[in-house]
Amino acid sequence: MSEILKENGIQVKITEAMKAWREDAGSLREKNRAVLTGVSPAGVIRAVPIMLNDFTPEEVMGFYKAYIDIFLESLPVEKRSAEQLQPGHPLKTLWDENREILRDAGELAIRGCLFSRERAEKLRPVAAKLRSMGFTHYDREEMVLFPYLEKKGVSALITSLWRSHDRIRERFREMNRALGGAPEKEKIREMSLKISEETADTAIRETDLLYPTAYILLSPGEWAAIKEQEGRIGYYGKPPEDRWKTDAEPVQAYEADPHITDEQMAALPASVRSVLGGMQLVGDYYEFKRGGDIELNSGYLLPEEIDALINHLPLDVTFIDSDDRVRFFSENARSFVRTPSVLGRLVWFCHPPKSVSTVEKIIEAFRNGEKDEAEFWITINGRLMHIRYFAVRDRWGDYIGTLETVQDITDLKRIEGERRLLDWED
Amino acid sequence: MSEILKENGIQVKITEAMKAWREDAGSLREKNRAVLTGVSPAGVIRAVPIMLNDFTPEEVMGFYKAYIDIFLESLPVEKRSAEQLQPGHPLKTLWDENREILRDAGELAIRGCLFSRERAEKLRPVAAKLRSMGFTHYDREEMVLFPYLEKKGVSALITSLWRSHDRIRERFREMNRALGGAPEKEKIREMSLKISEETADTAIRETDLLYPTAYILLSPGEWAAIKEQEGRIGYYGKPPEDRWKTDAEPVQAYEADPHITDEQMAALPASVRSVLGGMQLVGDYYEFKRGGDIELNSGYLLPEEIDALINHLPLDVTFIDSDDRVRFFSENARSFVRTPSVLGRLVWFCHPPKSVSTVEKIIEAFRNGEKDEAEFWITINGRLMHIRYFAVRDRWGDYIGTLETVQDITDLKRIEGERRLLDWED
Repeated sequence: MSEILKENGIQVKITEAMKAWREDAGSLREKNRAVLTGVSPAGVIRAVPIMLNDFTPEEVMGFYKAYIDIFLESLPVEKRSAEQLQPGHPLKTLWDENREILRDAGELAIRGCLFSRERAEKLRPVAAKLRSMGFTHYDREEMVLFPYLEKKGVSALITSLWRSHDRIRERFREMNRALGGAPEKEKIREMSLKISEETADTAIRETDLLYPTAYILLSPGEWAAIKEQEGRIGYYGKPPEDRWKTDAEPVQAYEADPHITDEQMAALPASVRSVLGGMQLVGDYYEFKRGGDIELNSGYLLPEEIDALINHLPLDVTFIDSDDRVRFFSENARSFVRTPSVLGRLVWFCHPPKSVSTVEKIIEAFRNGEKDEAEFWITINGRLMHIRYFAVRDRWGDYIGTLETVQDITDLKRIEGERRLLDWED
Repeated sequence: MSEILKENGIQVKITEAMKAWREDAGSLREKNRAVLTGVSPAGVIRAVPIMLNDFTPEEVMGFYKAYIDIFLESLPVEKRSAEQLQPGHPLKTLWDENREILRDAGELAIRGCLFSRERAEKLRPVAAKLRSMGFTHYDREEMVLFPYLEKKGVSALITSLWRSHDRIRERFREMNRALGGAPEKEKIREMSLKISEETADTAIRETDLLYPTAYILLSPGEWAAIKEQEGRIGYYGKPPEDRWKTDAEPVQAYEADPHITDEQMAALPASVRSVLGGMQLVGDYYEFKRGGDIELNSGYLLPEEIDALINHLPLDVTFIDSDDRVRFFSENARSFVRTPSVLGRLVWFCHPPKSVSTVEKIIEAFRNGEKDEAEFWITINGRLMHIRYFAVRDRWGDYIGTLETVQDITDLKRIEGERRLLDWED
């Protein structure tokens, strides 16, 4: 009850502020700042249906955008450190995306309230854009930023944010399904408001907690490594300008310093500290690189791990090097027997004489760059075997060998539908 | 014409020898040795239809077996060196199998000539056994013995034998297809005789040329390595007794000495030498092991080859080590984005919080040995993605990690029938 009264109070205040804004847009900042900064973006979004009773959608959108600007610029300085960074700094990019996400959340709420089957096309692009934050903005945080914070012992915050991200992703899936059918107006309106609110709420938690924490804990080298990687995932909206530069050597998450100084600790947002109840953050001091590790492009493995990894693949592998010699084969449950005697053998000698011309043709086309792949399939003892040849090239595109894979695809062909849950019985 | 007269002459001689053998089996060796050793096994097989006119099948079989023994024991000593080796020596095993193959070829000819639809069951087991030489006796030669001979420059002989093996394999496939339908008596009779003749002819070329050549050229260490490998492929009939022992260190084909001494050269079978026309055999001096190679269980790869090989697989790979850390991921056209920041990350942190309990359950069951595999499939953007987890164990069965593979199986599901030929247009 008191919650409803409070909500009603907020709505009255918002409506008043909006009337003033309609009279004189410039006056909003001076006269209503206190009112506006006392209401969260999620609170304003909840008021959208009421606002639409008295104002045009354009007015609501205009007011909402002005409100977001005022809300963000009124945040205390320690929450706005990310905003002050050079464009292109990964944290500045997250901050700027978050502002755009907050705006787009408002637009989704408005479009959702105005939804009808005839006007579905007005909602779709807004929903699609906002949904894309799940595999850009959120993915960058979860996949690239979070590992550094884990290393430094920050875990409760990121777990709770990740849960929110996932709930929002799930809500978007539900709305997509609803929009795919013959959706009821009321249902879409509810869904849009709910998604918008949760999105805005999550964005504010990131602004309040995640970004200040990352700002305080991460070093320039750590940001440099994040910068190298974030482009692989992609951005929400336009990619950032590239003005931020650093001379620092990139530091990967597994090399990051887990130690947190007392100064850093003291500077963390109060609620991050309060979760710890006076305890220190416990960093992750695991030594990732081991003696004997082979440094690979994207990982460190012992030779025995390389063997075991390849030998547990659900396909057989043979590698022929650029001298046309068999250089490696896997020892899975093989479809075609291989023994060490094949190592060093010229590939022409590993096939029945009548197939040699086909092998020659494939490898020649791989070597001179005309082709990248060849495939065959045959039935052996009732099993369908898929045999593939791939041209293997180094990062400069030069031919370094041919990979043969043989896979029993009999059972794969029977897979239907989806299996999202573990089917073990116990 | 002269060929037919000669054949007729042989048949008359065989018939006479057989009559004498029926009178007095023991006398065959003394009285008819000269006649018998002048006729090849293939020649005797060609005479089987005539023999069956005058003698019972049991008599023909008994005579044929006696003939094979006499034929083999009459070979010059340099062609019988393989026979003198200890049981278990790989070359002795080949020799003994060859004797059995020669006998079984005779039986196939006899059963084939007596074939009728009612008596198909008499032919099938003989044909099935003889056919198995294609993936035991022949495979061992092609896969394990031939690489050593290639290394030493012997290539014409092995190519021509391999062609014969393949022709015989193909004839067996044809006969199998014929037997699967409603075969004509005459056709099966012809096929059986043809296969038997070619099998016997190939066996004799092996006895005459391949085994003496291998006997002269291969070292004890080379035979030791062959011995280690041959069991993976398997034997024709019963596995050999294991009386042969050697102290020599196994020498893999890629380490084998390509040099042939003058004495070895002089001792080679005349027809092997005559192919060379006085030239030396040109051995294969390729250095298989390179600086920087990582020694794997079944091959030698440079780190950049390991990277390239894994990254060209038709599936995505992630490896979690026994400390539950992400230790490696492949960089194929990935279905799920991975960046270096994931390296060293605890696997629990790489998944949305709500999936963590599933990941925990899988890894726990892998670690304690209860399970070896888990699979899921989901549709993403219209593509069916097959996600599998494999317990990775070392050779002692101890858990060393978990392998995740993600494969787009959308196109694999559409594969039908067979594609045995390259489909490139040009």
